[in-house]
Parts: sequence; structure tokens; C-alpha cells
Amino acid sequence: MNPGESLLFKISSPEDLRKLEPSDLIKVSSELRQFIIDEVSNNPGHFGASLGVVELTVALHYVFNTPYDKIIWDVGHQAYGHKILTGRRDRFPTNRKYKGISGFPKIRESEYDAFGTGHSSTSISAALGMAVAAHRKGENRHVVAVIGDGAMTAGEAFEGLNNAGIAKSNLLVILNDNHMAIDPNVGALKEYLLDITTSGTYNKFKDKIWNFLGRAGKLGPNARTLAAQLEAGFKSTILDRSNLFEGMNFRYFGPIDGHDVLHLTKVLEDLKRIKGPKLLHCLTVKGKGFKQAEERQTEFHAPGKFNKQTGEIINTTKKDAPPPFQEVFGKTILELARMNEKIVGITPAMPSGCSLCIMMKEMPERTFDVGIAEQHAVTFSAGLATQGLIPFCNIYSSFIQRAYDQVIHDVALQNLHVVFCIDRGGLVGSDGATHHGFFDIAFMRSIPNIIVSAPMDAVELRNLMYTAQLDKTGGPFSIRYPRGSGIIADWQKPFTEIPVGKARLMSEGDDIAILSIGHTGNDVAEVVKKLSVESISVTHWDMRFVSPLDTEALHSVFKKFRKIITVEDGVLKGGFGSAIIEFMCDNHYIAEIRRLGIPDYFVEQGTQEELYRECGYDARGIENTIREMTGATVQRFNGSAAV
Amino acid sequence: MNPGESLLFKISSPEDLRKLEPSDLIKVSSELRQFIIDEVSNNPGHFGASLGVVELTVALHYVFNTPYDKIIWDVGHQAYGHKILTGRRDRFPTNRKYKGISGFPKIRESEYDAFGTGHSSTSISAALGMAVAAHRKGENRHVVAVIGDGAMTAGEAFEGLNNAGIAKSNLLVILNDNHMAIDPNVGALKEYLLDITTSGTYNKFKDKIWNFLGRAGKLGPNARTLAAQLEAGFKSTILDRSNLFEGMNFRYFGPIDGHDVLHLTKVLEDLKRIKGPKLLHCLTVKGKGFKQAEERQTEFHAPGKFNKQTGEIINTTKKDAPPPFQEVFGKTILELARMNEKIVGITPAMPSGCSLCIMMKEMPERTFDVGIAEQHAVTFSAGLATQGLIPFCNIYSSFIQRAYDQVIHDVALQNLHVVFCIDRGGLVGSDGATHHGFFDIAFMRSIPNIIVSAPMDAVELRNLMYTAQLDKTGGPFSIRYPRGSGIIADWQKPFTEIPVGKARLMSEGDDIAILSIGHTGNDVAEVVKKLSVESISVTHWDMRFVSPLDTEALHSVFKKFRKIITVEDGVLKGGFGSAIIEFMCDNHYIAEIRRLGIPDYFVEQGTQEELYRECGYDARGIENTIREMTGATVQRFNGSAAV
Repeated sequence: MNPGESLLFKISSPEDLRKLEPSDLIKVSSELRQFIIDEVSNNPGHFGASLGVVELTVALHYVFNTPYDKIIWDVGHQAYGHKILTGRRDRFPTNRKYKGISGFPKIRESEYDAFGTGHSSTSISAALGMAVAAHRKGENRHVVAVIGDGAMTAGEAFEGLNNAGIAKSNLLVILNDNHMAIDPNVGALKEYLLDITTSGTYNKFKDKIWNFLGRAGKLGPNARTLAAQLEAGFKSTILDRSNLFEGMNFRYFGPIDGHDVLHLTKVLEDLKRIKGPKLLHCLTVKGKGFKQAEERQTEFHAPGKFNKQTGEIINTTKKDAPPPFQEVFGKTILELARMNEKIVGITPAMPSGCSLCIMMKEMPERTFDVGIAEQHAVTFSAGLATQGLIPFCNIYSSFIQRAYDQVIHDVALQNLHVVFCIDRGGLVGSDGATHHGFFDIAFMRSIPNIIVSAPMDAVELRNLMYTAQLDKTGGPFSIRYPRGSGIIADWQKPFTEIPVGKARLMSEGDDIAILSIGHTGNDVAEVVKKLSVESISVTHWDMRFVSPLDTEALHSVFKKFRKIITVEDGVLKGGFGSAIIEFMCDNHYIAEIRRLGIPDYFVEQGTQEELYRECGYDARGIENTIREMTGATVQRFNGSAAV
Repeated sequence: MNPGESLLFKISSPEDLRKLEPSDLIKVSSELRQFIIDEVSNNPGHFGASLGVVELTVALHYVFNTPYDKIIWDVGHQAYGHKILTGRRDRFPTNRKYKGISGFPKIRESEYDAFGTGHSSTSISAALGMAVAAHRKGENRHVVAVIGDGAMTAGEAFEGLNNAGIAKSNLLVILNDNHMAIDPNVGALKEYLLDITTSGTYNKFKDKIWNFLGRAGKLGPNARTLAAQLEAGFKSTILDRSNLFEGMNFRYFGPIDGHDVLHLTKVLEDLKRIKGPKLLHCLTVKGKGFKQAEERQTEFHAPGKFNKQTGEIINTTKKDAPPPFQEVFGKTILELARMNEKIVGITPAMPSGCSLCIMMKEMPERTFDVGIAEQHAVTFSAGLATQGLIPFCNIYSSFIQRAYDQVIHDVALQNLHVVFCIDRGGLVGSDGATHHGFFDIAFMRSIPNIIVSAPMDAVELRNLMYTAQLDKTGGPFSIRYPRGSGIIADWQKPFTEIPVGKARLMSEGDDIAILSIGHTGNDVAEVVKKLSVESISVTHWDMRFVSPLDTEALHSVFKKFRKIITVEDGVLKGGFGSAIIEFMCDNHYIAEIRRLGIPDYFVEQGTQEELYRECGYDARGIENTIREMTGATVQRFNGSAAV
């Protein structure tokens, strides 16, 4: 667009937006939408969600006095428009890049980002906290939570509603209802929303009130809101609790068209004057204004690069490239499920992301997308397991944090045969700190009874999955693997059982030992090969299991080596390397151990390669550590002799 | 009671119960209630909850074909009657004792215990898993989840409802509505239930249907259920979704009297014939049949020993005994809140258990009982903190597992000034494996930005709380302490700031160093004193902080000592001792370290003393370890020389 004629390019902050006439907002919305299309088609990110809330974003910043008033964007990937209107238009090309702006709202990035929201369903609780604080401090602040119908299915959203319904708070929850999470939304709530939206009950009731009031004609576009306000006084006893949200003590308004920016601003103006907790139900279309995104919503949730004219998604993966771990998981679980009828698959709202959709297509009755509901996903799996089924419960590392209690209390304590496939373990790249799988190795290995494993490559993943479903396994089994590419193209080999707790010797040498877990072993193997040319000889074990550890392999290592490196794609505090030094101490060995992994801060976004490098466990970091430890580097030890 | 005349004593399993006439069930209920009163007055345990479901328990086992049919008791402390009827009457005097039966349902204990439920709100998800599995396996099994209104406020229960509402499952949820969790239930849902129960909407609507059908007289006590069945056909469009649970696709029945055992059996018989997910709303009285328990429900939730004639609670704590950590917390937060108006207190449904009730009484507007909703409690605290308030969020160790993601994503990542008071850290005693605070030291210390501390005694707790609320602290601060007694009677000293990351030197010696965290330091101090008589001289540091560690103290220890013991009331895998050996490795020290703490299995119930002893970190275990390490014990090390 031509910056000279653009309204958008005159907006450096919501202050500028608020100087415009209402009639300008349609043009602003249109330009904002085009800006997002231009940017995201070129610099990949989340797409459909932000397009769906363009008008809502414009209306909210127009009506509310941000940043004094607070807007919390639930699952912040809908907040691109918000970022662009709040002073980050010029920096937007750095979105999700190393050292660039975050793909999610982030308090430290802007005073307009009221709350960081990488994970879903936190907005109502956070907003209630802000509203209660404002009340305590005597501030007349508006607090708005914008939450999708997908995020509304998570327990925390319900907990927030349940508490907000009794609080004296001027809280506005905007339900952004597009019938989608990343994949189509599921559950009874979805059906309920569809029901009140389309055929149903609620509209009929509305119409009755409407006719009863006889005001439809007189009040113009604002009428619905006023009607809603008036309803309160006219509702009969029977109708008093006729809406699920009103059952929770929220005043319910809507549903209204979330793409009519003028109407939105008027409704929001009206709602500002209504005290107490209230919910505005907006109907939006995910991907609105970009035909292909409207039609193929799951694909265009985060499509990668695409041609903004044709909508063609530009495939940047090389032909014949090894498939990502996700595809290996998806194809393998289907193969296993064909062989073993006890296997079922569970995902909390990530069938495409984790590739369970492959099994879902062939065996819909044996796969369960439970919606954004990690706690339920795990306990539901436990329930299935008590009856002799073998659930493969696939959850991203950063999301299984939300089901930690259920993993402990419902699965591990009862020693049930549930297989956790922990996807996105380790640094995930451009989604950044909220989505990195920092902690799972550390927090899973503390739990008794669970086998904790991580495959180095596609074949290992396949064989761990095979092993996990064997009857003799019998108890909980976790398999964690990273986001993205494996390294083996030809991976569909016959299944082989992996002995539980057995490591794999990748190379034998004399100078130093390296113990790796998971995919980091591939970088180690590459470095070992490179250094062998220089006659630096390395023993490399792919440990495969964090619990139980291969004590035989470890005894052999500690008997032979005084210098050992551990490598993991996870936190150093309490992680895999710590397990190794626990073994060392408990068995009275002495060695110099260098642990490579994620240091004690929240790593931000970037490509995985950039981030591995930052943390020092990319191939170069591993190589440098070997050189340092085997070279002439002076070592500092305390004066005491050996114990 | 006289076993000869007793019906209860003839019931060795539900089979026996089902041989009785319906008319016998009143007597069985009465005897069962008396048995529980007799037992629990003498051998302390949970009381009010089980009394409240006596009739429900009898009716369920009478109507359903247990153990083929599955009953899941949400928060299993309501399951005493169930245990007594299912073959554990004779063993009931061992309830909650070391090596005795568990105070909660436990799969390994009985085939009648369908699911272990120490934590709340899991029953619907687990039951759905069982129902779906039955459907898959072609088994015509009934699955019943019995859940209290308190447990219903937790997010996971909602997630379960949301998923069950769309599944083809013969799932019956019984809402045991007594308006209480441990403390009175809170939230919009509670008001909603009260509303449909008492004045309201729903009953009026029911009455209309009732009159309309004109059958009230003809059908006798069964009429309501049949009316409910018939309703479905007669409901008008407007009324179709008039109930919150029906909004979730559940067929709703009730409310009915949960103490009318005959009516209950008839209603349950009827419900067996109705397909699909359904909810029966039962009104019960917590503590039913024991006057004092009905009147003082919070006190009689788990009253300790009491006189079964007078209802007098027998105070077994010695006069002038040091107060428990809980009381110190409760009194201290009130003192601090009086000084610092930014402080607010948050508890998820445990105001009495954690003693926040002390502050609540004086400052109701600054304390928030959010109900059983740990996730919300943490994110709500984060929201408050963004606005400059300082929330003290008190959560039991085993329950903060349920808010782990929120601690990471909403508080730590945003570096917000939230103070976590983690109560019940370490082994809690008779509640057993589900309630032990096994993991918190390990899973909290992995998280960047959080100060992780544990006081050794009441004065330290007080001063850590003082330190945590200072403006200069600025970020997240966690303080964990155990269930029960402190050791200092005279603890209300003036506040003193504790330098963050600074340990406390308790004694200096030359033979060995002991590093303790939290209350375990008291046992260490006792042992050190004892051994000093034998000229075994010990350096003892109360480390106080797990993150950040006192590196100065640690350097001094590792420079001087080759033998070091760490002691903690938490898991060894990844815990405090691991933090110490990480330090050792990273700083190239060499020492023999013995880590004392909880080994790698789920420790069961017993007194805290019994369990500390089992795990080897009671005073005797510490003493033995010192003797072993300083004595002539042969030490096994590998042949290699020092590094």
C-alpha cells in the first residue's frame, strides 16, 4: 500500500487511532488486514487467528483507553494486529525472529501487552486479578479478556469464570467464537455455542424479547445491546438462568458479528457503562479476508511462507528430506494400532500438530481429540488404561506442564500403562520462551515408576513406541522428541524391541566419553566423526533412557574415563546431566563432568540452530567442549587429594 | 453394637448387601454410620464427608453390580463407607496407619476401588475413560462418578463434563451437593446450585412440569424421576437449555434428598435404564447424623480424636507446645499485611488448613479463597502482581503440581512478584502417597527467576515471609515448609531480613559437613549435639535457599571437606542434594557425598516419624550416616587417581 494514503501508517499508537472518525475504522481494518497478509506471507507466523480479530482489535483500541485499560489476548497468537497498532509496525518484520519481537504479547516488550499469553485459557484469571487490583486501588480501569471458543474448553477458563462471576469486578470477557482451536473445536461447549448461535433457543428467546419490547426499529444498530440491557428487568423467573454463562453469573450479550467494526465499537461503548462481569459473544471467521485461509483454516493457522496472491503455501522442505519426528509418530502409531487393537490415541487439540490426525483418519473411533484440556487428557488416558487399553497420549512438552499432577497422581502412582509421547521437547524455535520444552526431562525423571526415554532419531522413536506398547512394559512410559526434522530418510524398518534402560554405544574411543540423550546425539556423532580425523578419539553413548539409567554402561564409562560430557536439549538444573552425576556420586566415582544443556534463564525465540548455539550445545559447542577438555586447558581443582 | 444383631457385620462384600431386602437398607445405613463414628472418633481420619454419603454408598452398592460396574469416589476421603462395605471392615482400625489401609481408594488395595482419588476433580475424566473403554470392548458396564460440589469447581471437572457431554457413554455423574469443600464452597457455580436447589428457577419449572403431568399422586416416591424422564419430551424450546448441566449435554435429574436411601435406590434403578451422560443432583449434609459435625463442618472435616458421646474434640497437642508452621504462617501474614497494604492472600479452598483464615477474619477484602482451582489461584495471583500488589499464594505442595504450568508461564517467565507459600512440603503422614509433597523442591528449582527457599523453623519462616514481601525482592519467591509442628515456642520475634541466597552456619566442626534444607536441619542439629559428646565434630549449614545457592558457603565447605551429607524432605532425584552435586561438578571439586531424602518410590502413609525413618533421614538415619562416613567403613572408589 502507498504509505502516503495509508491511515495505518499514521498510527504509531492507539492514541493516533482514537483521533480518527468512526467512519475511518473500516479503512483502518482493511489496511491492517492487508498489512498482516503482506507480512506473514513473507515472514511465517500465526495467520488465521489474527486475521479473524482485525475488527475486534481496531474496535477495542478505539473504545478503550489502552494502555490504562487492559486488554489480555488469550493465546496471544491472535495479537498481531494489536502489536501493529501499538507501536510495533516497523519492527513487525522481525516477528518471531532471533532477537526480534515475540509472536505473543510480552509484558517486557510493550506497556500495551498487559499479560504474556503463549499458553491458552489464562486470560480470564489474569484479567480478574487486574480488575480486583484496580478495585482495591480505587482505579476505574476497564479490563478485557479476549478468548477463543477453543481456549474456553480448558479447565482454567472455567475456574476463572467461576471466580469472576462472584467478584465485584468490571470485567469484560469477549468470546471470540470461530468454532476452531488450531483444529476444529470439540466438546459439549462447542455444540452449545453453535446451538445458541445458529438455530436455537437463545435467538428465539432474544427475538421474543425483541418483539415484546417493540423497539427494534427505533434504536438502530445499537438496539441489540440496549435490548440486552433491558432484558434484565423483563426476564421472567423461568428465563432467568437460560444461558450457560448467565448460570455462571455473567451478563451475556450477543452473539454479534465480529467483523462489523462500527457495530463493535458501539456495542463496546455500551458495555463500558455496564458494571460487573459480562460476556460478549462475537462471531468471527478464522482467516477472515483471505479466501484460502477461510477455507483451509487448520492449514492456515500457521502456514509458513505463502503466495499472497494465489494462497499457495510455499513448501520450503527439500524433496526427499527426512521426515520430521511428528510424521514418524503419526505414521508409526497407525501401524502399531493396526497390529495391537488395545492401542488408542489421545491429543488435547493438536491432531495436526502432532500428526495423530493420520491415525484419526483411518480409525476415528480409536482416536480422541479432547480439546484444549491437558488435565483431562491424562486422567482420561488413565481411566482407559485401567480397563486394559493402551493409550498413547501425545502432549507437547510445555503443555504437559499443565497435567503434571495428573501424570503423577493418576498415572504414575497407580502404575498404569499409559504411553506419553512428549512432542516439542527442548527448544522449539520461533514460538519462543512460552513454548520451549525446557523442563520435561527434569520433572519427569523425578517421578517413580515412569520409564523416561528420548529417541535420537526416527528409527529409535519408532522402536521406542513399539517397545512402549508391549504387554510386558505394563506401566507408564514416556518418549520425548523435538519439534522438526529427523535425520533418517529411510526409517520405515521392521520394528525392533529396545531393552528398557539400555543405552546404545555409538562409538568407542579413549580420550573422552560423551553421554547424550535424544536428538542431541546426532550433533555429537557428527563431531565425533570430524574429530576422529585429528585422532581425538571419543566414546559416545546414546543413553536413550533417563529413567532407568543404563547402569552397566555407566559403570563402564566411569571406570575408564576421567573426563565426561553430557548433552541434552533441556534444562541443566535437575536434568539428564544431573542424573549422570547423581550416579557418579552414589557410586563413588570421580570424574570431571561438563554438562551441556539449557542454562538457568528463559531462552527466547530464534531458529533452533541459533538457540542451540546460544546455549552452547550445537555441534560447535560440543566440539569446543571436547577440545577444551582434552587439550591443554588448565583445570582448577581443590587442593585435596582424591577421597 | 452387638455383632449378633448387626446387619453390617454380615456384609463381607456388596454381594451380601444385595441379598438384603430394600427395607433393610435403613438399618444398614444407620449401622454403617455408627461404625464410622465409632472408628473415626478413636482412630482419626476424615469424618464429615463419609458421614454425608452413607446412604448414597449403600444405595450405589445395592443397585450397581460392583466391582463389574465401576464407582469412582472423587476426593476419596468420602469413601470410608465404601471401604467398610467392600471387605475392609475388619481392617478399618488400621485406616491411615503405617502399613494399614489407605484413607483413600486405591486400586492395589481392592478390586472395588476403581480409581485412586486423593486429589479432587479427577473422577469424571477417569470415569469417562472407563466408560469409553467399556464401549470399545462391547461391555455393558455402568460407570458412576460421585463428585462433591466443591470438587466441581476445579477446571478438570469441567474438562471432563465438556468431553463426556459428547461421548457415547453410559456415564452417571452424581453431584454430592453439600455446599462445602473442606471450608464452605465458593464461586458462581455454588450460587447457581444453591439457586436451583432452594428458591429458584429450576424447582418452579419442575413444579410446572409436575402439575402439567398431573401424576404426582399416582406414582409415589418414584414420581420425580419419572417426571424427569418425561420432561425431555415435553420441554418447550425455550426451556430446552435451562440448566447449566444440560447446556453441557448432560441429562439433569434432581435435586433429590441424598439421605433417603430407599428413594435413592429407586432413582438409581431408573437411571440405569437411561442411556448417555446424565447427572443426578443429590443434596446431602456433611457430617449427617452426628450433631456437632453437622453444625461445625469445617472443624469436623478431619477432627482428630473426639468423644463420640459429647462431640468434644480431644486436643492431643501439649500445652505450650510450639505452634505448627501453619499457625506461624497464618499469624505472620496478618502481621505483614497490617504493615504492607500491598499484600493480599490467596488460597485454593484451604483457608483453615493453611491458616489463611486468620487473615481472612480481619481482612476479608484482602484474602481470596478461590475454591478448588489451583491453576486459577496462580494466574489470578499473577494478574494481581502485574498491578503492583504482592500476592501470597498458599498452596499445598502436592496440589501446586496442578498449577505447575501457571507457575512457569504466568509467574516465573514474567518475573512477577508472587510469593508462593508451599505448605505440606515433604512427607505429610497419614494422608499418604497422594498427599506427600515429594517433588516440589525438584520441580521448583528447575525454573529460572524463582527464589526457592525452605525455613528450618518458625522464626526462619517468619523472616523468609518478611523478606519475600520487600520491594527489593521484586520477583517470584517460594517458601516451602512441612505439615505440622515447628520446634520453637517463642517465635514471635521482630522481623529480620534474610539475605537472599545466604545459608546459616549452625555449627562448625572438622570431621564432616552436613548441608540441610528446611526442617530436616532440626534433626541434624540434634544429632550434631549428641555426637559432639563423642568428639565427632560436624560442620552444619542450614542452606535455607535451594535457588540461588549460597556459593560462598559451598566453596568454603568443598575446600575443607571430603565427606559431605545432604539432607532434605523431598525426592533425591533432581532435588536439593542434586543441586549440591551440580555445584560440586561445575566447580571441579571432589568429595564423597551422601544424599539423604526420599528414594525413588511412592512412600505410603504412616506418621511422619515412621516415614522419615523408612526413608533414612530421621535423626537416627542421619546419625548412622555420619558414623558410617567418619568411621572405619571401607569406601569403594574406582581405581583411577584424582582427576
